[in-house]
Amino acid sequence: MITPTDPEPEGTRPPPTRSRPGGRTARIRAQVLDAVRAELGEHGYDGLTMDAVAARSGVHRTTVYRRWGDIGGLLADVLDAASDDDWQPPDTGSLEGDLAALNQEIQTAMAAEPPIMAALIAASFRSEKAAHAQQRLWEDRYARCEIVVSRAVRRGELPPRTDARRLLIAATAPLYHQLVLLRTPPDPQLPGHAARTAALAAAAGAFAESRPEDGT
Amino acid sequence: MITPTDPEPEGTRPPPTRSRPGGRTARIRAQVLDAVRAELGEHGYDGLTMDAVAARSGVHRTTVYRRWGDIGGLLADVLDAASDDDWQPPDTGSLEGDLAALNQEIQTAMAAEPPIMAALIAASFRSEKAAHAQQRLWEDRYARCEIVVSRAVRRGELPPRTDARRLLIAATAPLYHQLVLLRTPPDPQLPGHAARTAALAAAAGAFAESRPEDGT
Repeated sequence: MITPTDPEPEGTRPPPTRSRPGGRTARIRAQVLDAVRAELGEHGYDGLTMDAVAARSGVHRTTVYRRWGDIGGLLADVLDAASDDDWQPPDTGSLEGDLAALNQEIQTAMAAEPPIMAALIAASFRSEKAAHAQQRLWEDRYARCEIVVSRAVRRGELPPRTDARRLLIAATAPLYHQLVLLRTPPDPQLPGHAARTAALAAAAGAFAESRPEDGT
Repeated sequence: MITPTDPEPEGTRPPPTRSRPGGRTARIRAQVLDAVRAELGEHGYDGLTMDAVAARSGVHRTTVYRRWGDIGGLLADVLDAASDDDWQPPDTGSLEGDLAALNQEIQTAMAAEPPIMAALIAASFRSEKAAHAQQRLWEDRYARCEIVVSRAVRRGELPPRTDARRLLIAATAPLYHQLVLLRTPPDPQLPGHAARTAALAAAAGAFAESRPEDGT
């Protein structure tokens, strides 16, 4: 997934009887981050407390405070953990298809219950640590998505000097703008529309990297 | 302005010696909303209190509590007051020019100091009342901007059945996504790039209103 909505691989706890190098530290992290996601999904940022996370995770509160410091530290680690996966963007055979599938993942994640992705984005307006971690996660996701553009270039759908990041932001921005800021209900047509808009603009040269004489 | 950054017309207080019908109520509102903007700009949401607003405005705290109820009510009224103006979108003679000028206004407002627009958007993640008022303000602004599209249709730049709202959201969404969510520093090329992308997509038919047989 492009989002931290799903439990991450390390969220799947090994049975307590198994042991492995670094296992205890990883297990404690998984338990605590699972508890953060669950508390956040149920109560939102305002109901998220270090003590509730500790109680729910079964990890001693002293450990939680020592290792994560505060709520911002917990949220940042949830967001950082979301990058520890092997997520890859969809590969549908066309630029527009890949972008539409990507946008569908974003819309599904934003509409998920409990609304963990939405709550993490909201939390990024409360905590600097969460804001920076959210930036790192998006950077990771957009970097992984650049292959969508390079595949389209290889297929001859796009000119070689295409600014992948600008194209990806143009394709996904309407989803985030509508769902996060304008707070419109999910529109089943939006993922495809936004993908088609970006693909048409790309075909018309909107993301061609500017040559020196372009000026702008 | 597209944003509530600037003091609104009613923020210009008449000299206290003048009187006019409804003058006192309007003057109290102007004083209080000026104080909310100033406190928000200086201290952000977390430093915004009813008592500080009352003290700064010179309006009795009982009046402030009775009329606005709480911080959410104050923020909502700041946002609602921003619509009480005669703002119109830029008219540059071309679709791309209008969209670029509009995007420049958005970027300028988002980068303004004190960061009132950014603080109001952040506050909309704290207060339901502010969130709804922010929605109303954006609805007002996007509705006013539809004339940009109808002018382009009249000039023959766009087909008559163009979905103005989708076009405007596509043109402006990259600004909000980058500045508010991705928190990238303002990029002087972004307003023009996003405008050009939307204009190229529009020329390619991306916002043509779908006919029944389109299905999607």
